[in-house]
Amino acid sequence: MGKLVYSASMSLDGFIAGAGGDASWMTEYLGPDPVVDDVISQVGALLVGNRTFRGDDPHRDTPREGKPFGGGWEGPQFVVTHHPPGTPVPGVTFVTDLASGVAAAKAAAGDKNVNVLGASIARQCLDAGLLDEILVFITPVLLGDGTRLFERPGGGKIRLQRLRVAEGARMTALWLRVAG
Amino acid sequence: MGKLVYSASMSLDGFIAGAGGDASWMTEYLGPDPVVDDVISQVGALLVGNRTFRGDDPHRDTPREGKPFGGGWEGPQFVVTHHPPGTPVPGVTFVTDLASGVAAAKAAAGDKNVNVLGASIARQCLDAGLLDEILVFITPVLLGDGTRLFERPGGGKIRLQRLRVAEGARMTALWLRVAG
Repeated sequence: MGKLVYSASMSLDGFIAGAGGDASWMTEYLGPDPVVDDVISQVGALLVGNRTFRGDDPHRDTPREGKPFGGGWEGPQFVVTHHPPGTPVPGVTFVTDLASGVAAAKAAAGDKNVNVLGASIARQCLDAGLLDEILVFITPVLLGDGTRLFERPGGGKIRLQRLRVAEGARMTALWLRVAG
Repeated sequence: MGKLVYSASMSLDGFIAGAGGDASWMTEYLGPDPVVDDVISQVGALLVGNRTFRGDDPHRDTPREGKPFGGGWEGPQFVVTHHPPGTPVPGVTFVTDLASGVAAAKAAAGDKNVNVLGASIARQCLDAGLLDEILVFITPVLLGDGTRLFERPGGGKIRLQRLRVAEGARMTALWLRVAG
């Protein structure tokens, strides 16, 4: 059975997007990387937050950033939203609640992992006790402001367990298990 | 000549202290660690922010958390403050501006590094172009809220270069050079 894994490229100071949701900062860090390729090969399905799917435009029917993982992956995507678009999107299934989205994505992924995309849905998975692992690609940059890995005002300590560290071409991959 | 290095233990989500400045979260991650010992052995002097030195009490004359690095280090400390305490503190030199604090600490450290303690002074060093390296001990925990590695509202991209990664007992040490 695959795991539910939240993966994200993150600046050293903890941001997955710059101010205003800007994802362009990441462009210069993309490129051939065996560590990233290995991660992508283990992904069987995506669980995508509505905000990540639609970007800044709530009426958009197509993903904001073209292909997931910059184009190196093809597979089923599950988007959690109360307002599915009127026209179908190839390869994308719209679900209305988190639990059924996770279940459907896991069934579709089989032995592979379900990869969570989006800080808000990742936090919902964490809060619901559904998140198995976190994989961050720590990128050698400071962004200073923007969207954080998790937004949890007021805080609360959640213990993790380090599983593995790998040095990618420029990013450093860090896998952790959510310990509860 | 030693380098000016900002080092901090940081939660995976980018906090060096919990909500309200709470540093107690770190306690369970302290303990024998050859990677930490190696870092400490390279430190010749400390450059300490006033807030870090005094803690929550602006009138306090002694450091908040007893010994630096949990007690494993002895050496000269330089505290940047416009309001030095009335009575001397052994081993501590009070300086009124950042540049002279950095110069004095570097002179005292000789061939060893000057270690910056405190998010605010670290940011000042970064802004002034004085910071050479950042060393984070990424700790397997999410804190959700608190004091960030750097506070830079509005953001601004600063490129880093990865120098070294080391797996400590539980923390993962990541060294980076400030690339400008």
